[in-house]
Amino acid sequence: MSYTFNPQKRFLMGPGPSDAHPRVLKAMSTPLIGHLDPQFVQMMDEVKDMVQQTFLTKNELTFVVSAPGSAGMETCLVNLLEPGDECIICVNGVFGGRMVDIAERCGATVHRIDTPWGEVTDVNQIKSVIEKCPDPKLVALVHAETSTGALQPLQEISDLVHNAGSLLVVDAVTSWCGVPLKVDEWGIDALYSGTQKNLSAPPGLSPVSFSPRAVAALENRKSKVQSWFLDLNLVKNYWSGAKRAYHHTAPVSSVYAMHSALSLVLEEGLGNRWERHQNIHQYLRNELETLGFSYLVKAENRLPNLNSVYLPKSINDEAKVRSILLNDFNIEVGGGLGDFAGKIWRIGIMGESCTKNHVNMLIGALKEIL
Amino acid sequence: MSYTFNPQKRFLMGPGPSDAHPRVLKAMSTPLIGHLDPQFVQMMDEVKDMVQQTFLTKNELTFVVSAPGSAGMETCLVNLLEPGDECIICVNGVFGGRMVDIAERCGATVHRIDTPWGEVTDVNQIKSVIEKCPDPKLVALVHAETSTGALQPLQEISDLVHNAGSLLVVDAVTSWCGVPLKVDEWGIDALYSGTQKNLSAPPGLSPVSFSPRAVAALENRKSKVQSWFLDLNLVKNYWSGAKRAYHHTAPVSSVYAMHSALSLVLEEGLGNRWERHQNIHQYLRNELETLGFSYLVKAENRLPNLNSVYLPKSINDEAKVRSILLNDFNIEVGGGLGDFAGKIWRIGIMGESCTKNHVNMLIGALKEIL
Repeated sequence: MSYTFNPQKRFLMGPGPSDAHPRVLKAMSTPLIGHLDPQFVQMMDEVKDMVQQTFLTKNELTFVVSAPGSAGMETCLVNLLEPGDECIICVNGVFGGRMVDIAERCGATVHRIDTPWGEVTDVNQIKSVIEKCPDPKLVALVHAETSTGALQPLQEISDLVHNAGSLLVVDAVTSWCGVPLKVDEWGIDALYSGTQKNLSAPPGLSPVSFSPRAVAALENRKSKVQSWFLDLNLVKNYWSGAKRAYHHTAPVSSVYAMHSALSLVLEEGLGNRWERHQNIHQYLRNELETLGFSYLVKAENRLPNLNSVYLPKSINDEAKVRSILLNDFNIEVGGGLGDFAGKIWRIGIMGESCTKNHVNMLIGALKEIL
Repeated sequence: MSYTFNPQKRFLMGPGPSDAHPRVLKAMSTPLIGHLDPQFVQMMDEVKDMVQQTFLTKNELTFVVSAPGSAGMETCLVNLLEPGDECIICVNGVFGGRMVDIAERCGATVHRIDTPWGEVTDVNQIKSVIEKCPDPKLVALVHAETSTGALQPLQEISDLVHNAGSLLVVDAVTSWCGVPLKVDEWGIDALYSGTQKNLSAPPGLSPVSFSPRAVAALENRKSKVQSWFLDLNLVKNYWSGAKRAYHHTAPVSSVYAMHSALSLVLEEGLGNRWERHQNIHQYLRNELETLGFSYLVKAENRLPNLNSVYLPKSINDEAKVRSILLNDFNIEVGGGLGDFAGKIWRIGIMGESCTKNHVNMLIGALKEIL
């Protein structure tokens, strides 16, 4: 028995994926070419260059993991941590917790810094842990917590981490291409992102980048990386060098789409794109507050592109309203995770979903429902 | 600086990817929907059902890993092996060797059975190793070695493996949807495949399936699975159950394409598809042998859909001829790997690339070049 699939068109205003530009969708339908075809190798070089441009880095070891953001997270941790290593991981939402889980599976001893969900980690919290654990291999933070909408300041923490001789590892899944992310200027040593947020490409790939300091740590490993698929010693020979060594078959079509979406970002200009996300956020915020929604995260740490909001008191059953939005208006917004399940919404205005039209559709629908 | 990408159309007759059907390419360009949208969840159920139909299995734990076939390989081994486990891995090409590498990274003791590349493992080789290592956790083989074009018989080995109380793990990347693969009838306990071979979908996903015996082994693990991304205890709650638990963001568009390609397979009929690959193989073989090519693998173990052939003596520089085929005729064939680099070609007739027209294009081009 076979099936057909003709989905209803949605407007994606949740935590990702976001709407894709028609040019990106068209790129996905380009006939396949071989993953070692000179045409494909050249395109990989261009993708790498555009990832460097949007990460604001000159890191040579910059490439794309052939799997979603979670695999990018695992790539960073599994390559940098070895059994017995100590590390500090800051947890203020789902994704910090996930990093702890992965780091423990690497055999590392994790010093976990917990901060209430919706808040950000303070430099002094890290300082006091470093005093007790003076030589951590790495300190990891989530730049933009997708589960709460909090935006973590990084620059001051970066200095502290480097003074301790440690590596700064950053989850940039929901910040990349939506808010300022300055890899070299901020001294980020390893980071990963995803394609389905502010880049507005289909989910499935995770760009990563490693500083020369991180590469040195990699080269000084005593043990083999426990994952073959994510072992940078192997993957890097496929993504760079004069002769590309076969490692695995790259997801050709997804790389097409990423190439196309990156071109759109650079045509718009990275700074303009950050500004657009900030402007549409203000526009959305005014409307939401008028309707009685209130923000979970305080203003100075608020991620503009993912708006975590408590619902107006008039809404008793948030899941029902989300379901009406989806079924009657084809608009997707996200619910809360963990302790915030049933209590908040996560409204994404990311990439192609970051327009006044999207906001107006959502607000219009909400006015009719409430 | 941004880039444009307008690749030359290729005819893909290498070891994969193969040409995709226009309907599959069109599916890739379908606007995105959320990865927890009820429409997407229903489509995942349909994909699971169609994978079960084409694997010929009723295994409940059947789903799709959100990464290429190599990650499917790692999923099978990392979930079934724990530090200290003993296992037997049969190596007669690149992919058997890769399984050894991964199993060792899992902390397992590997009893490796080497067979010359191009040949297949004999049941007696496994029997004699089991006599020395009577309690292996699993025995792993490659059903269709993509590096050599050898097709491994499995049924007799399956009985031996099960009599030893061991699990049978099979790499079916290049066999699935091209040659008979009967998971339940043959007693395969864990297998993985890829989308870019006989299914003719874009690369990037890996369908996997686990028998109740394999699930029991999973449930009796003493230690956590070392990979978070590939941990079946977590992933399975996203692919089944009444309430889907968020694990990672599925590559929505790639799953669309897989759904579409699986529908095409079932419309053709699995048996008809096997027969088509066999018939076109005969057609290609006659033409190749007339031109002076000769097969690496003896007739009874020959994979019909991936033809590994020594070149006619008149060709001194095989890479140059492949390059003319690619640049002047837009036809991709594969070169040899490992010891066979520079010595053989791997000519794929897989899925949508398995037509008389493809063979005629290739043979016509070769006649002109030689």
